[in-house]
Amino acid sequence: MRAEDRRLRVRALLDSVRAEGRTALTAPEGKLVAEAYGIAVPGEELARDVEEAVACAARFGGPVVLKIVSPDILHKSDAGGVVVGVEGAARVRAAFRRIVDNARAYAPGARIHGVQVQELLPPGQEVIVGAVTDPTFGKVAAFGLGGVLVEVLRDVTFRLAPVDADEALSMLDSIRSAQVLDGVRGRPAVDRRAVAEQIRRVSELVADFPEIAEVDLNPVIATARGAVAADVRVILAESLPPVRRSYTRAEILTSMRRLMRPSSVAVIGASGEPGKIGNSVMRNLVDGGFPGEIHPVNPKADDILGRKAYRSVTDVPGEVDVAVFAIPARFVAAALEEVGRKKIPNAVLIPSGFAETGEHALQAEIVAIAERHGVRLLGPNIYGYYSTWQDLCATFCTPYDVKGGVALTSQSGGIGMAVLGFARSTKTGVSAIVGLGNKADVDEDDLLTWFCEDPHTECIAMHLEDLKDGRAFVEAARATVPKKPVVVLKAGRTAAGARAAGSHTGALAGDDAVYDDILKQAGVIRAPGLKEMLEYARALPVLPTPKGDNVVIITGAGGSGVLLSDAVTDNGLSLMEIPPDLDTAFRAFIPPFGAAGNPVDITGGEPPSTYEATIRLGLEDPRIHALVLGYWHTIVTPPMVFAELTARVVEEFRARGVEKPVVASLAGDVEVEEAGRYLFERGVVAYPYTTEMPVAVLGAKYRWARAAGLLGGGS
Amino acid sequence: MRAEDRRLRVRALLDSVRAEGRTALTAPEGKLVAEAYGIAVPGEELARDVEEAVACAARFGGPVVLKIVSPDILHKSDAGGVVVGVEGAARVRAAFRRIVDNARAYAPGARIHGVQVQELLPPGQEVIVGAVTDPTFGKVAAFGLGGVLVEVLRDVTFRLAPVDADEALSMLDSIRSAQVLDGVRGRPAVDRRAVAEQIRRVSELVADFPEIAEVDLNPVIATARGAVAADVRVILAESLPPVRRSYTRAEILTSMRRLMRPSSVAVIGASGEPGKIGNSVMRNLVDGGFPGEIHPVNPKADDILGRKAYRSVTDVPGEVDVAVFAIPARFVAAALEEVGRKKIPNAVLIPSGFAETGEHALQAEIVAIAERHGVRLLGPNIYGYYSTWQDLCATFCTPYDVKGGVALTSQSGGIGMAVLGFARSTKTGVSAIVGLGNKADVDEDDLLTWFCEDPHTECIAMHLEDLKDGRAFVEAARATVPKKPVVVLKAGRTAAGARAAGSHTGALAGDDAVYDDILKQAGVIRAPGLKEMLEYARALPVLPTPKGDNVVIITGAGGSGVLLSDAVTDNGLSLMEIPPDLDTAFRAFIPPFGAAGNPVDITGGEPPSTYEATIRLGLEDPRIHALVLGYWHTIVTPPMVFAELTARVVEEFRARGVEKPVVASLAGDVEVEEAGRYLFERGVVAYPYTTEMPVAVLGAKYRWARAAGLLGGGS
Repeated sequence: MRAEDRRLRVRALLDSVRAEGRTALTAPEGKLVAEAYGIAVPGEELARDVEEAVACAARFGGPVVLKIVSPDILHKSDAGGVVVGVEGAARVRAAFRRIVDNARAYAPGARIHGVQVQELLPPGQEVIVGAVTDPTFGKVAAFGLGGVLVEVLRDVTFRLAPVDADEALSMLDSIRSAQVLDGVRGRPAVDRRAVAEQIRRVSELVADFPEIAEVDLNPVIATARGAVAADVRVILAESLPPVRRSYTRAEILTSMRRLMRPSSVAVIGASGEPGKIGNSVMRNLVDGGFPGEIHPVNPKADDILGRKAYRSVTDVPGEVDVAVFAIPARFVAAALEEVGRKKIPNAVLIPSGFAETGEHALQAEIVAIAERHGVRLLGPNIYGYYSTWQDLCATFCTPYDVKGGVALTSQSGGIGMAVLGFARSTKTGVSAIVGLGNKADVDEDDLLTWFCEDPHTECIAMHLEDLKDGRAFVEAARATVPKKPVVVLKAGRTAAGARAAGSHTGALAGDDAVYDDILKQAGVIRAPGLKEMLEYARALPVLPTPKGDNVVIITGAGGSGVLLSDAVTDNGLSLMEIPPDLDTAFRAFIPPFGAAGNPVDITGGEPPSTYEATIRLGLEDPRIHALVLGYWHTIVTPPMVFAELTARVVEEFRARGVEKPVVASLAGDVEVEEAGRYLFERGVVAYPYTTEMPVAVLGAKYRWARAAGLLGGGS
Repeated sequence: MRAEDRRLRVRALLDSVRAEGRTALTAPEGKLVAEAYGIAVPGEELARDVEEAVACAARFGGPVVLKIVSPDILHKSDAGGVVVGVEGAARVRAAFRRIVDNARAYAPGARIHGVQVQELLPPGQEVIVGAVTDPTFGKVAAFGLGGVLVEVLRDVTFRLAPVDADEALSMLDSIRSAQVLDGVRGRPAVDRRAVAEQIRRVSELVADFPEIAEVDLNPVIATARGAVAADVRVILAESLPPVRRSYTRAEILTSMRRLMRPSSVAVIGASGEPGKIGNSVMRNLVDGGFPGEIHPVNPKADDILGRKAYRSVTDVPGEVDVAVFAIPARFVAAALEEVGRKKIPNAVLIPSGFAETGEHALQAEIVAIAERHGVRLLGPNIYGYYSTWQDLCATFCTPYDVKGGVALTSQSGGIGMAVLGFARSTKTGVSAIVGLGNKADVDEDDLLTWFCEDPHTECIAMHLEDLKDGRAFVEAARATVPKKPVVVLKAGRTAAGARAAGSHTGALAGDDAVYDDILKQAGVIRAPGLKEMLEYARALPVLPTPKGDNVVIITGAGGSGVLLSDAVTDNGLSLMEIPPDLDTAFRAFIPPFGAAGNPVDITGGEPPSTYEATIRLGLEDPRIHALVLGYWHTIVTPPMVFAELTARVVEEFRARGVEKPVVASLAGDVEVEEAGRYLFERGVVAYPYTTEMPVAVLGAKYRWARAAGLLGGGS
């Protein structure tokens, strides 16, 4: 059927269902919709008399199921109205008569429309194919195995609808019990393409008709030769979600560029009085060394921190890029009107007292004002933002001046402070730190769109509790990931966390399984916790991108080697199978009782030269793509000696164009802390007292490299 | 059947199987064994001819299954030797003949004993009940659901055999798909006691007969009215493992007391020459302030570090408790003979060059010498050990003098150095740090037995790659856990890790699923990584034991509240449902827009008094059992102000006898690091820049409290 014809047909059917005031389609209606979209269903016809039934059964070929059709009989089985597995004209005839007689006996007055003759599906693997409407991501396609166990274990996978054929196929591999589809215990493998095609078509259906809330093909019987939906359930939505105001990529970039690289900033509510937020913001802008214009706005002052103050932002001369608000919530609307009249493209709303305190109407009011004037809002209820390469510190927190490649955003102010403290403590090089707060307007996808283009930003890390528009985020992430890694800490993963998120920002946290699958598909690196988000953000720009999958562990401590191997597996990395010639080459450097293979265990008593020789070999050999070092503090090779030699060798190879990620776990006395800092600053991601974190960081880099298509292979 | 009778019967049967040179029992033999142990099996008889088969089938009544019986045909189905669901004399007759013909055609020379006639079981839930011989733990009982999915998802649980009725029942709850047994989709729940009874009896069987390597009831058909094993497979071991030398608890305590609290220590290979291990050990003993006697032994010196040196340890006057070896491997055996003659109970073998370098014979030799003399060996291949309360530093590393409650052991020297560095960096209070190395003799269960009794030790943390005797460890852990927590980092969890462990110590790493279940049953807290082991060890003695399950989060940062809620769920803790009166009480202290409920969100702009009032309420109310604090760095409540008030309030309540665990996540600028240290030193477990670790530590404390029976409930 042509795309247009099938849409018209389904449209007509849905309209008639609506006209009857229903939201659930009947089974025959569901089947019509399925057929229009080429979703395979069993052959099925209504036979009004015995001979029609015989003819139908003959057309289908194999055994059939016969079911009474009567609007007055709901429980067909109870009425003796179902017979399964009938084959041959004589048997069909007998079964038809028996069913009708049973039905008459069961409900004497019942209207009987006939008998439904249905192809009997062959035995096969039951799977579930469906689509649901997610509050964050809209229409998503779902796939899982059928049966009791999967219902209990919730082994289901999701993708944004519509999916193409390859994405649909990838869903078959994304469930934990994927192996079942390949055939186990001598069963044949299912027809993967046929199953994927069912998914693809369902996803197309819901993408074409946003009013379809849910489709459920349950079960689909998958065999070696096809996949047929035994049951089709279609539910319509009660109402459609409101359409959200959206901006084009160009529009977003224009306003974001002025936000992140302003020439002129106005501070509404600037104050000369220490302790006031308007004073902190002014001081930070000035002390941070922002080279652009800084205009305090305060009706009661002539001069603040030596700068001329204006009664209104409309009095400020020239173009202004950003208005930072440091006034109480109740004065924001009026000031925002002036910002709009002044055609300032960005309002940074530090004040709280909006949706997060239940003041939804006040927030809606300022959003309306902003939309009317085309002003983008950052916040409200935020600490402000940093744009380090502009020496811009538009916050009431303390300035931050370590310039670097990481852009960090947080929905929560508290987490923002943790970001700041961690960054300062570890000297993390930062391009921006941005508070998002209530996200009345600007959200993660706007910022991601900017950071994607920002040449200073090499890695983006975002703490979020919800996404206002999951699809816009995925779009921005997909555009960004091929260029730079995107790390996300999604808070409210668990039911308890989601409840807490609900009471915090009024955000509706989506089902985490949906988030998890869709963020993964978008190539986002999901951090399991705050600590990991911070460490990934700090370390990813430091590590070169691996060029292949072969990870080699070189360790002085055999014990670290075992734990590092565990971590390699936990992080989905592959320990290289060392070929014999390389094994021989490693063995030449290590004691006879040391273990080559992988980990390469050089043993604990070795001098610096053994570390150096084996690290050199690891960097030299083109078959090795990443090194994990396990250092063991000994008198023979003290921490700083190890750090110096490792940094020197890695630097030497990088100068020669050999860039491989090198991470290190440092086991030793407290001197290893200094060694760790020394190495980190020189491009070797090193941690004391942990075998997990260095490998977790390497794993994050690999996940990104795969998602960015730099390693071949999908997820 | 009486226990003795059934043992005799099975003994006779196994002996006859052995006599035939077989290790696999036939199905009828398996059934005899099952019946002797009361393991429910379907009615079943061997029919040697057609008419016997007809008679059997008639006796059972319903449909039957027919199976060929031949010692030469293993895969009966492949041979066409199975027919299911035969009923009626004529059909039984036909099926019998078909099976025998098929078998003859499949394996012409096969001996055919007849056809087994078996009751056909009613439909039900398939489960697997079995027992295997684990290299570490010996006989273990196994339970899982049957079917393809579980085979793929490996959803199986293990316990040490034999299990009692309660343990067997607990296995039904320990699988991920446990819910299936309760009946889903309208199916009835299975007869749990009947299933558990099958497990218990199988476990009894393998405990009675160590020569049985494996028992497999697969499937057991569980219905609402029973559980019957449709198939019984019994495999005998090729050989029995050698019996390991074992010591009584009293013997262990006697030698361990002298090891950990020695009055007199000899250093074999003591040296005056800096850089030598024998010099480091001497210097550490002297500089560490060990108040007992220190006797250098060195044939070439009269005096070392001002102490009289002896040519041989046999020359040392008086009783010696510990001989520390600092001589090359090849001299150890001779010196150990002298140690034995001198009746020194403990030899601490620092030297490497034994099993870990492939010198298994040398290691076997010293073990034999030690056993002959009754000397216990620590090591070889270790850094030595610390017993801080004795000011004893018998290692070549640097002394450690922060006395406290944590005993740490490590199998690997490298990990031992990480333990030392971490402890020093965090000022962890330590009772002992012990290297175990090759574990030629003394191992974790010996040390655990000692630490259980040691009044200085409040918590034990052990890094291990294998257990030489899993049962002895479990026994020691079970004795210890009711008194103090035992934390274990088991390296070699993954296949890659286990391979690395194999190449490191020659240890055979057991299946991790077995380790995981059995350690959990023993009440051990398993740390997921090195970092967690170290943090648990440091923090558990600091935290009071919770007296109930109600955890309350009090947070300044809503964002931290969400992440802390996630962590609470991840760690198996329960967020308290706050009753209305308590909710009202909290609300009295927080702004109207703050969220009571749980987390209690006091919001970010609050002064110290709000933190104080809500923390007081949390400590005061007896319905609350543990507090998780989320601090947000603001100008109004700076980090040290928060730290001081929290420590003060907690101390005040502890002085009044109200001891509740309090942990804190600190979100803020770098000053939070100092605040964290301040709090930790005062009994509040606090971490900067992470919402995960404080809750993970609290979770570990709860896991221990549950295992120790202090909270009611099992796991």
